[in-house]
Amino acid sequence: MRKYCDYISVDCVIFGFEIDRLNVLLVDRTLRGEGESDIEFADHTLTGNHIYETETVGDAANRVLYDLTGLTGIYLEQFKTFAHPDRLKKENDRKWLLHDGRDPDKRIVSIGYFALLATQDVTIEWKGRNVKWVPYHEIGELAFDHNEILENALIALRNKAKHEPIGFELLPEKFTLSQLQKVYEIILDTEFDKRNFRKKVARMKYLIPLDEKQTGVAHKPARLYMFSREVYEKTKKDLFDFWV
Amino acid sequence: MRKYCDYISVDCVIFGFEIDRLNVLLVDRTLRGEGESDIEFADHTLTGNHIYETETVGDAANRVLYDLTGLTGIYLEQFKTFAHPDRLKKENDRKWLLHDGRDPDKRIVSIGYFALLATQDVTIEWKGRNVKWVPYHEIGELAFDHNEILENALIALRNKAKHEPIGFELLPEKFTLSQLQKVYEIILDTEFDKRNFRKKVARMKYLIPLDEKQTGVAHKPARLYMFSREVYEKTKKDLFDFWV
Repeated sequence: MRKYCDYISVDCVIFGFEIDRLNVLLVDRTLRGEGESDIEFADHTLTGNHIYETETVGDAANRVLYDLTGLTGIYLEQFKTFAHPDRLKKENDRKWLLHDGRDPDKRIVSIGYFALLATQDVTIEWKGRNVKWVPYHEIGELAFDHNEILENALIALRNKAKHEPIGFELLPEKFTLSQLQKVYEIILDTEFDKRNFRKKVARMKYLIPLDEKQTGVAHKPARLYMFSREVYEKTKKDLFDFWV
Repeated sequence: MRKYCDYISVDCVIFGFEIDRLNVLLVDRTLRGEGESDIEFADHTLTGNHIYETETVGDAANRVLYDLTGLTGIYLEQFKTFAHPDRLKKENDRKWLLHDGRDPDKRIVSIGYFALLATQDVTIEWKGRNVKWVPYHEIGELAFDHNEILENALIALRNKAKHEPIGFELLPEKFTLSQLQKVYEIILDTEFDKRNFRKKVARMKYLIPLDEKQTGVAHKPARLYMFSREVYEKTKKDLFDFWV
């Protein structure tokens, strides 16, 4: 049987993009007492696990994601590591760890990863655990230091969204400029002026206008666009883009 | 006495900028045998240390830097964590750990930080250890997984240099455009066309041309510039800068 390393874990912040909001995948943590209806507390954690003794941390993060979604090859990025001496010391956390047969005084290093998926593409099923998408703005106090991990993941995600074209991963192959704008508004939690947005994207050579329009919409059908990674990679190399 | 946590360490990649090259601060690691002149091996490590049981990893990284340079308040950035099961398993590394009374089979998580300093501003003195600046291009095989840590730090530094104005930290308050160009050429290990570079910087509103020129130079004195962080912060907020 594979043994866990009891002082190294990964925590995965799995962002799920939906057309009008950003979700995060959370795990129900309910500590039951003696009786069936006797609940000590109920809250949520991020998805995560200890790593196996012979496993790399990247493999562990992929394993957590695979166990949840059945998907492989998802983009996961390590963004920060959390090792504060008091990170597991809240009362509920100590109770939980003791109940689980673990030492609440052991200092555990957790290596944070984030992933970004389109919510509708994913069927969640984690062996016997209650896992669900929760809208980011509805998330309250989480277990351990998971609020801190979440905030840092969001900063990393937004930083990435500003510097790399990750938004296209969340769109269909052909999309409208309104859909593109919406993706970035959701990720960055902001609203763009439509005219400024279009002026900006008009300069992006890797955004290819097609001779096609939307079909099956009630309003006036909009032009469709495609993202060209090839043009993007070429343009990127030509850019002398520091600070601006 | 403060106790170390024997499975968490920090490794600091301390980059030292010099006018014609980028240096890295390395520690001599020499394993001596029985006789005084009997040397088993000699190589180099990055600067680093285990963390104390009650210390945060950020404090540990600052402590390593302070012990080396006497400086506080240096900008240090956590960039990646290294925990491969085989990262301490090279023959010399095992010998070194055993000689040092440590368990070479213990899996140690190392949290990587990088710092960027101007080499000439720093007097290095690490209690009894032999520490020196080594030009990046002259660094050979390092101990443990320290080449991998170094490469990842350099990627993080360059990424940062492209998106944030860190170059100004390495320049005097008033500087010429040639000095600015040189800083970025050294960090990014590239050469810029002078005209393109000037066209680019002419658009940066936070680069303030002064009514002053260089003094005490043999060639035609060049105009001096200042960096305005205030204008930069303002400009940045106005920018809708994703991907370009």
